[in-house]
Amino acid sequence: MIAQHELRLDPLPRGFHLITREVERAVPELGGVDVGLLHVFVAHTSASLTVNENASPDVRRDFTSWFDRAVPEHADYWTHTFEGPDDMPAHIKASLLGPSLMLPVRAGRLALGTWQGVYLCEHRDAGGSRRLVLTLQS
Amino acid sequence: MIAQHELRLDPLPRGFHLITREVERAVPELGGVDVGLLHVFVAHTSASLTVNENASPDVRRDFTSWFDRAVPEHADYWTHTFEGPDDMPAHIKASLLGPSLMLPVRAGRLALGTWQGVYLCEHRDAGGSRRLVLTLQS
Amino acid sequence: MIAQHELRLDPLPRGFHLITREVERAVPELGGVDVGLLHVFVAHTSASLTVNENASPDVRRDFTSWFDRAVPEHADYWTHTFEGPDDMPAHIKASLLGPSLMLPVRAGRLALGTWQGVYLCEHRDAGGSRRLVLTLQS
Repeated sequence: MIAQHELRLDPLPRGFHLITREVERAVPELGGVDVGLLHVFVAHTSASLTVNENASPDVRRDFTSWFDRAVPEHADYWTHTFEGPDDMPAHIKASLLGPSLMLPVRAGRLALGTWQGVYLCEHRDAGGSRRLVLTLQS
Repeated sequence: MIAQHELRLDPLPRGFHLITREVERAVPELGGVDVGLLHVFVAHTSASLTVNENASPDVRRDFTSWFDRAVPEHADYWTHTFEGPDDMPAHIKASLLGPSLMLPVRAGRLALGTWQGVYLCEHRDAGGSRRLVLTLQS
Repeated sequence: MIAQHELRLDPLPRGFHLITREVERAVPELGGVDVGLLHVFVAHTSASLTVNENASPDVRRDFTSWFDRAVPEHADYWTHTFEGPDDMPAHIKASLLGPSLMLPVRAGRLALGTWQGVYLCEHRDAGGSRRLVLTLQS
């Protein structure tokens, strides 16, 4: 079985956001799957996806701090600057974290570890609505 | 359905290169797939794959600028240096971006966003021909 | 065909460790697969997986050197510090490398390049046992 859905997320502020529940709700077939895989893909080049700690908001804030220092705005080596100082760093951050996740499914649920959640990583100051493509296999 | 193909890319200069069309052409079954996933894997440890902006060559040049600064040659902490100063940084860059992509397929085409393209990231000065393994599921 | 297994790794010291053989042995169906994909997922937020050079231990040591400099402990911008100075850097490193790999399978074996191996990346000083979820498709 293979099923594909779209999930459109309302605009989120720049930063790292837990979207595990939104992803699960967007795939109605998930509850009936014994063993499978769920692919989550973000159809943009300045937002990305990752899995990390689902509890403390401190972790998500520290992600922002590290990524903003590792990929600085206003560096003198940027040449792709006409869309604003947050654009080119957003492209780099998006590729460092990647545009997709593949998550195991077991007994009708994502088989994540106890502390794992899915993050939508919004790297633009005003990225707007983001479109995800979700593909479930079983 | 599952189908696997190899794609051998001619040597590319160090940098980031759009290969979306080469990938699509290497999988003849793609046009007949309604809903599926395409896995792209690079069988090397000093090249990688990512998805990013498919329009402006500025973006791909700025990728090179950032990665060359983030993972410098000639750092005093490298011990694996006998294959040249570009070798160990190439291994790190390869893992930061990753050896594979999983891309959604819809209606006979890769279901990428408007601005998304597939990059072959060549991290060596003379990496030579690169071999990709493409696996289509539907 | 889809089959899922768990692999529990004994505690490993902080660093980068080859686990290709452990992964292959944990999936008994692998030997009978002509064409397929193997998904490997680590169910933790301070360890990750990557593919890189399988020969020289120098490479794995240099991975540690680079990641420890790129994501420093004791930086003044960390706020999530109550689990120790290695905790928040471990979360960042885990997301930079990612929680999962998808590997091509051909003729009963992982279709890796000659020099490629699977790394378990342990980012904590005392991370303990790590649990992997392995999902084979063919």
